[in-house]
Amino acid sequence: MKVLVTGASGLIGQHATALLHASGHEVIGAAHLPRFDQAFVSRAINLLEDGAATRLVSEIKPDVVLHLAWSTGHGIFWHDPQNLAWLARTCELAEAAADYGCRRICVAGTCYEYAFPAEGDCHEATTPTENHFLYDTAKDACRRLLTNFCMARGMSLAWGRLFHLHGPNEHPKRLVASVARALVRGEPASCSSGLVVRDYMHARDAGEAMAALAISPIEGVVNVASGVGATIASIATMLGELSGRPDLIRLGALPDRADEPPRIVASVSRLRQEVGFTPRFGLTDGLADSLAYWSREAVNT
Amino acid sequence: MKVLVTGASGLIGQHATALLHASGHEVIGAAHLPRFDQAFVSRAINLLEDGAATRLVSEIKPDVVLHLAWSTGHGIFWHDPQNLAWLARTCELAEAAADYGCRRICVAGTCYEYAFPAEGDCHEATTPTENHFLYDTAKDACRRLLTNFCMARGMSLAWGRLFHLHGPNEHPKRLVASVARALVRGEPASCSSGLVVRDYMHARDAGEAMAALAISPIEGVVNVASGVGATIASIATMLGELSGRPDLIRLGALPDRADEPPRIVASVSRLRQEVGFTPRFGLTDGLADSLAYWSREAVNT
Repeated sequence: MKVLVTGASGLIGQHATALLHASGHEVIGAAHLPRFDQAFVSRAINLLEDGAATRLVSEIKPDVVLHLAWSTGHGIFWHDPQNLAWLARTCELAEAAADYGCRRICVAGTCYEYAFPAEGDCHEATTPTENHFLYDTAKDACRRLLTNFCMARGMSLAWGRLFHLHGPNEHPKRLVASVARALVRGEPASCSSGLVVRDYMHARDAGEAMAALAISPIEGVVNVASGVGATIASIATMLGELSGRPDLIRLGALPDRADEPPRIVASVSRLRQEVGFTPRFGLTDGLADSLAYWSREAVNT
Repeated sequence: MKVLVTGASGLIGQHATALLHASGHEVIGAAHLPRFDQAFVSRAINLLEDGAATRLVSEIKPDVVLHLAWSTGHGIFWHDPQNLAWLARTCELAEAAADYGCRRICVAGTCYEYAFPAEGDCHEATTPTENHFLYDTAKDACRRLLTNFCMARGMSLAWGRLFHLHGPNEHPKRLVASVARALVRGEPASCSSGLVVRDYMHARDAGEAMAALAISPIEGVVNVASGVGATIASIATMLGELSGRPDLIRLGALPDRADEPPRIVASVSRLRQEVGFTPRFGLTDGLADSLAYWSREAVNT
């Protein structure tokens, strides 16, 4: 199949395009600021420009669109007004896809669409949704609109709800990157008390899971996550141990945020059983891979 | 206050602008196809054009925006792809309003945002929402986005959920208009069995209620409706009696639609008690007013 991937240079896009190619599909990767050292990224396009999404789809006429592009600026994406523009442009992309004969669209959602249960995991079919920030509100709105639109136009829709991620090329201020970078420099890694539980997945697994979902026939919401909950403290401690410098982890050195949900963990039975996806990495070897990346980066810079 | 009204030439916009002016406010009415025979409609603008909403707001710098414009094409608005464009442009309008110092925005929602209860009325605080068609899905998405956006930008938001309407200038194929037009021509008025219950409000009341809401301090969702449920059969029968030709009403001549919700009636306690709005028309005298309008139209054409 011919698969158009937006956000192809991003944290998960790079892995999604690689897996699609390896699976024998024709992949066209589009990105605003493409890294042409990445294979399969061939189109430089700013999808926020009026008509850009329509032009892209009309040129390529893909069978499947895997739409990963969105506002992702570290620290600002939660409240970024561009979330509204991404919502509008994603709708434009879906309309163009339907107009040019695309059969299926797969879009990146977020775990923040959920009303997080106090205990247990977030289930696609039974956990209620809730609007928290502009980011997840726009994603939630987008899912509602595309669900309706795709049904009306006879286009298949999958919505991959991504949970927490780490991996090569992530923003250096994100959790795993910031701890790993301190460790490889031999500097103290200041953390909060880290008692909240999160579901962290390696970006390679997340990208490959999104690709697998895109080319599967599965419709609707699918959690894209590890299904394993771990405290932030245990993740930081694990990185410390993997680096041989557990003494550098300073839990409680940063204040806890009062508004942090205590637990965000996915049910992954749809991803595992219906999509048939199995991650390569467990938590420990995934963190080891990220740590190795930041070690190489420290040597190279 | 300076109040910008979009959709000012529409079914309810014409009445909303008149009431705002009568209440001593400076009113600027904007419409795509303005009817300049209507007072207070001074701007011809297509808000679906890129940047149009921002230009309008930056010129006028209103204190309050009453946003009534949206896709309303009879029969097509439920599934009109332009619902997506209206969602995007409404977000653009809200951003521009916040940027140019507007303190409050009041937007027209729809009763179709509700998951209609089998019995009883739709309450703003307790009746769940549900997505039915692209129209209400886009309105629902818009409300979620604006709720978040306005809170972040310190702008007050009111969301007036309109129920069913009738009145002068409505599309001739809508329920009350079509029955009234047949009656004034002395032709049979074919209806379904008409057993479903609806909450019909005269457009003058609806426009004045939206205007009252816009200049009130009330925030969040407010049903804009009569609070009175009546079967479609009783409305048609009432029009027949008011016209002196009850014999022309043919209940059951048209098939019933299987997917029609049996009951859509508003709780109006917020509108009455918090906004302090009392409608001019009861159901009977409202219908008499619409009937009189169509009688005059029949004479004039």
